[in-house]
Amino acid sequence: MRSLNMKEDCIFCKILNKQLSSYQIFENQEIMAFLDNRPLFPGHTLVIPKVHIETIFELEDHLAQKLFQASKHIAIAVKKAMGAEGIFIGNNNVIGQTVPHFHLHVVPRNKGDGLKGFFWPRNPYSTEQEISETQLKIQNVLKGLNI
Amino acid sequence: MRSLNMKEDCIFCKILNKQLSSYQIFENQEIMAFLDNRPLFPGHTLVIPKVHIETIFELEDHLAQKLFQASKHIAIAVKKAMGAEGIFIGNNNVIGQTVPHFHLHVVPRNKGDGLKGFFWPRNPYSTEQEISETQLKIQNVLKGLNI
Repeated sequence: MRSLNMKEDCIFCKILNKQLSSYQIFENQEIMAFLDNRPLFPGHTLVIPKVHIETIFELEDHLAQKLFQASKHIAIAVKKAMGAEGIFIGNNNVIGQTVPHFHLHVVPRNKGDGLKGFFWPRNPYSTEQEISETQLKIQNVLKGLNI
Repeated sequence: MRSLNMKEDCIFCKILNKQLSSYQIFENQEIMAFLDNRPLFPGHTLVIPKVHIETIFELEDHLAQKLFQASKHIAIAVKKAMGAEGIFIGNNNVIGQTVPHFHLHVVPRNKGDGLKGFFWPRNPYSTEQEISETQLKIQNVLKGLNI
């Protein structure tokens, strides 16, 4: 049976619906976690809300809270189970997002695993003015939000 | 004055202490956000807990919840303020972690921004057995955690 919170052509909703199979890791009332079948490294897990929400921008606060809390426990489990040295948590919204159903990646990492260039290049601001103007722009928008 | 929750040689604790300056974006009782001064792209913001916690593995549930809730609002603000198409949220633990004080990266992204190879290569599991054994390993550890 299709719930009203599901989207018919969404691959993750199909996994939630059991129309598609997955290697499930965790489930509670609001959240499901399963293995990415094209992992960066074995044990790479996706954590998703059960309702179809596309990006972080539409995520309700209580659900954002629960998703990250669950991801923390899953990070601990993936690290231990895979004997990994570290964990990367990643979440792409719109750009770089292949499946438009919110998902947090929990990825086991090890020294020399080849993801060296992952967070580069970095581009320092060229002037003090540029960085302080950037600060002001973001602060101004943030003031309007009920954070 | 140095709080007991601060670590003397930690650059982020020094920012919290105002021993080092930063371009602050947001602050409440438990959380601070400021511009990364070597951003992937302008507007790249770091969200940190005020207590010195090194990685996600030591983060208390309530703080994990609040950090991601704040990051959601900051993501909305950074997207709007920078006129970005999308947002990437990232968190490195141990591997790829330059500063050993927990931090979430909130990074504005746009089509063609050059981070194409960001989440690649992906390496599918070679057998069904490999993926189901991986699932079992993680599930077994997770069962022992109070999630």
